Amino acid sequence: MQDILDEIAFDISGMTDRGQVADYIPELAAVDPSQFALSVALPSGEVFSAGCANQLFSIQSISKVFTLTMALGKLGDSLWHRVGREPSGDPFNSIVQLEHEHGKPRNPFINAGAIAVVDAIMMGHQPKELLAELIQFIRYLAHDNSITIDEGVALSELATGHRNSSLAHFMASFGQMEHDINCVLGAYYHQCAIAMNSEQLAKAGLFLVSQGTNAVTGKRIVSAQRARRINALMLMFGHYDGSGEFAYRVGLPGKSGVGGGILAIAPNKASIAVWSPG
Amino acid sequence: MQDILDEIAFDISGMTDRGQVADYIPELAAVDPSQFALSVALPSGEVFSAGCANQLFSIQSISKVFTLTMALGKLGDSLWHRVGREPSGDPFNSIVQLEHEHGKPRNPFINAGAIAVVDAIMMGHQPKELLAELIQFIRYLAHDNSITIDEGVALSELATGHRNSSLAHFMASFGQMEHDINCVLGAYYHQCAIAMNSEQLAKAGLFLVSQGTNAVTGKRIVSAQRARRINALMLMFGHYDGSGEFAYRVGLPGKSGVGGGILAIAPNKASIAVWSPG
Amino acid sequence: MQDILDEIAFDISGMTDRGQVADYIPELAAVDPSQFALSVALPSGEVFSAGCANQLFSIQSISKVFTLTMALGKLGDSLWHRVGREPSGDPFNSIVQLEHEHGKPRNPFINAGAIAVVDAIMMGHQPKELLAELIQFIRYLAHDNSITIDEGVALSELATGHRNSSLAHFMASFGQMEHDINCVLGAYYHQCAIAMNSEQLAKAGLFLVSQGTNAVTGKRIVSAQRARRINALMLMFGHYDGSGEFAYRVGLPGKSGVGGGILAIAPNKASIAVWSPG
Amino acid sequence: MQDILDEIAFDISGMTDRGQVADYIPELAAVDPSQFALSVALPSGEVFSAGCANQLFSIQSISKVFTLTMALGKLGDSLWHRVGREPSGDPFNSIVQLEHEHGKPRNPFINAGAIAVVDAIMMGHQPKELLAELIQFIRYLAHDNSITIDEGVALSELATGHRNSSLAHFMASFGQMEHDINCVLGAYYHQCAIAMNSEQLAKAGLFLVSQGTNAVTGKRIVSAQRARRINALMLMFGHYDGSGEFAYRVGLPGKSGVGGGILAIAPNKASIAVWSPG
Repeated sequence: MQDILDEIAFDISGMTDRGQVADYIPELAAVDPSQFALSVALPSGEVFSAGCANQLFSIQSISKVFTLTMALGKLGDSLWHRVGREPSGDPFNSIVQLEHEHGKPRNPFINAGAIAVVDAIMMGHQPKELLAELIQFIRYLAHDNSITIDEGVALSELATGHRNSSLAHFMASFGQMEHDINCVLGAYYHQCAIAMNSEQLAKAGLFLVSQGTNAVTGKRIVSAQRARRINALMLMFGHYDGSGEFAYRVGLPGKSGVGGGILAIAPNKASIAVWSPG
Repeated sequence: MQDILDEIAFDISGMTDRGQVADYIPELAAVDPSQFALSVALPSGEVFSAGCANQLFSIQSISKVFTLTMALGKLGDSLWHRVGREPSGDPFNSIVQLEHEHGKPRNPFINAGAIAVVDAIMMGHQPKELLAELIQFIRYLAHDNSITIDEGVALSELATGHRNSSLAHFMASFGQMEHDINCVLGAYYHQCAIAMNSEQLAKAGLFLVSQGTNAVTGKRIVSAQRARRINALMLMFGHYDGSGEFAYRVGLPGKSGVGGGILAIAPNKASIAVWSPG
Repeated sequence: MQDILDEIAFDISGMTDRGQVADYIPELAAVDPSQFALSVALPSGEVFSAGCANQLFSIQSISKVFTLTMALGKLGDSLWHRVGREPSGDPFNSIVQLEHEHGKPRNPFINAGAIAVVDAIMMGHQPKELLAELIQFIRYLAHDNSITIDEGVALSELATGHRNSSLAHFMASFGQMEHDINCVLGAYYHQCAIAMNSEQLAKAGLFLVSQGTNAVTGKRIVSAQRARRINALMLMFGHYDGSGEFAYRVGLPGKSGVGGGILAIAPNKASIAVWSPG
Repeated sequence: MQDILDEIAFDISGMTDRGQVADYIPELAAVDPSQFALSVALPSGEVFSAGCANQLFSIQSISKVFTLTMALGKLGDSLWHRVGREPSGDPFNSIVQLEHEHGKPRNPFINAGAIAVVDAIMMGHQPKELLAELIQFIRYLAHDNSITIDEGVALSELATGHRNSSLAHFMASFGQMEHDINCVLGAYYHQCAIAMNSEQLAKAGLFLVSQGTNAVTGKRIVSAQRARRINALMLMFGHYDGSGEFAYRVGLPGKSGVGGGILAIAPNKASIAVWSPG
């Protein structure tokens, strides 16, 4: 396994076209696009890594997997009154579908859906309380208490996120938001600004590998059915309008983030985290 | 003329179904829907009225005619880089077209277009300065210095206007807003909250009757060509997705407002203001 | 008047960029784009022309004005159950709106609407009978019995009109077509293939100049109200998604055709036909 | 296994609400909605069934799995120039997306995509030749030479399929159809009219259970990678805008047909065919 990872990292290091970093979030635009990390966490507890697996990066939309898991825990299937579970067929920030469907987002992984999930799990609490709970949950999943939020990234997004503000106000205009929009968006941007390295991320995904139980810690996180369902949702629309492409080529449930990370789950085998900011 | 107006007012007074007031703006929801006013201003200076022609009401979207006139005066045809001049075929607050056309509104009379017009004429000034100039302009048009803004209505809209906030943030996400969104929206809501009675409104429309000149005061407001063009825009999309219906039935350039007012122009003949809040 | 027209024709003759002919209808693609004709018919009976005013051309979509007039005569306002009277905000052959509105076209001038009008006035007759009636009607309007259909153009369109077939089948799938689709499309393509010169076309439009009466022949064609309404419809959406532009720049009710002709009405003044195939 | 199936069939038999048959295809509307069949084919060669597993039914859209498999065999990945592989997020017969994407269907399982697949594999042949090849292929997959096409169903669809005609003409208007539309649609309706019973259908799906090889006959049908990819496509959009729901609840690749059949694949375990016409 280590040999395979090393070979992949070596191949990548020889590539000159490393893509482009997201330039619409100032803090992310400054990240060096030539970096690369890859970690594979096994149910046995072994973690194999290659590249800069200790380098923290912004998990961005990958965090939506964790808030969705929290939301299903708090609300169960009643979450689906707030957000659908069909592919959107549109880019991550499209508003067209929202108008046709009266402010109910298609699924929890497009931005509008993820904002609705935050609103749904806030339940009258302050953003700080919600974020504390979320960080605690992710630390528990990854068995690592050092995970935190990168405040600079969160503020950077807050200042430039006109599209997300538009989506949130749009849902509010249909009476679909329960809390103050600025509070919800503040929490959402902080959630996206969670910083992890590829080892931590791979370990945090382990509960989706072994039917809802983190096989390393032995803790049950969700039921086997729920783990299977979260995997189905990741496979269906974990990559917005590139989900079909990813399912066709890779065939694994996965969730991408604009920070360059991807979490992929090979059921019963491994949790895989990749980071390539470009 | 007076007889005709009296007859219309009498017929209306016998109608029991007087429609419904807009309920999404709290201050407007409290208006008595059984009120009615009708004024006809002639180039000769005569004004005929029936009903409660001295009752102030919120002109709402009718104000877009005046800001458009101001904007054409300040920016000329370069205004059309910011906003189109085609019918939208959609309701006044639709966002679908905005996404397909990269944040450029179809025309200056849908909400997104009117907000873009405010942003375009703000030109680095404070909302208060812009509003002072606008009120001054409308007073000049109507030859009446008593016209003011109803602050209560403006604040009432500010608190509930999620859809307009969404439209403004959406345009901003395409880089289409030059000023702070809250400033632009604040100015926009105050513009909509201008209070006039039907006599004042009919008189303010006179410049569109006589080729750009207010025939009563003798002042030229806009060129004959521009007056004809503003009339064409009112005919084309003065009533959102009801414009074709209005053009087919009435055949006059007109602009409606959600406060229940309509300003209609019979070129070379008369400026007509109606108010029926239900 | 003659001097003005001659000057326009002279100016045009010096222009080197004469646009492009429609290349998707084979017979039209062969027309020389440098041709030009302009005719102005007055209620007095005078007709002024410049350019090749005796050259026949394919009136194409301008024919929709005549079928709409026939349809209003046969069906009155019940026509509006079949077709709307709002601008579409989309190109002439868009199908998106049809799906959202269950197969009812937005207005009688977009292709789907014009096909629906043909279906509505066919009333169980054969295409040939309908076409005979239509030609008779246009001859009557223009006071000219030589007007005919260019069979070659009609067949040329029939062979290539996949988009129109798609629109017709789409409406049929909503149960909105009463007759066999091939019959309706056959009639539609023949209607579009009516050949007229600019003098004939200007004369055919005279009934819209003088409140529904052809002032030259003294015959009443439609009521004054209906003439005004047809003019309103032409102003609103006579040029598809370029209607606002035309209304803003020209300010007259008009109808364009892909063959390069435009019929414009200056109410109480003149009927104007222009032809510039490029 | 047999006990489980019998129990399911017994439970179903007690249900009074058995849904509704598709009423837009006359021949299917006559099917008794209370029928039920269920078959499970294992790689070992065993087939377990319950209900009327010998009753032939119209497989309808399930046939799209077989034509897609044929098309990938003939064209390889160049098929994806003709049709996408993203979920449509719209009903099976929507035309909106086609307009926005210039006549290229989103995926091979929506009707437009399946029609494009037929056009792509026709390759200059007659519909009869293509259908003969397709039937031969399905017989080979199911190891059963008795499978045929129900001509009555095919003709029934041909007569009423305005929406499919519209989709095909629409694609043709973008130059996306290589063959005569009536030929392609004729082949498409015959493909949908293939009649199979649940045993045959379950056996025909076996190649997708065991990495592309029919484990019973020992014949390799497609590569392991291709089998996995076809499964991914079935999971992603095998049920149109209900795909997310199916993936969430069932979690298996599957393809439904309007005749009431579903083929579902449990990789490495079983091929499952269900039929419930209501």
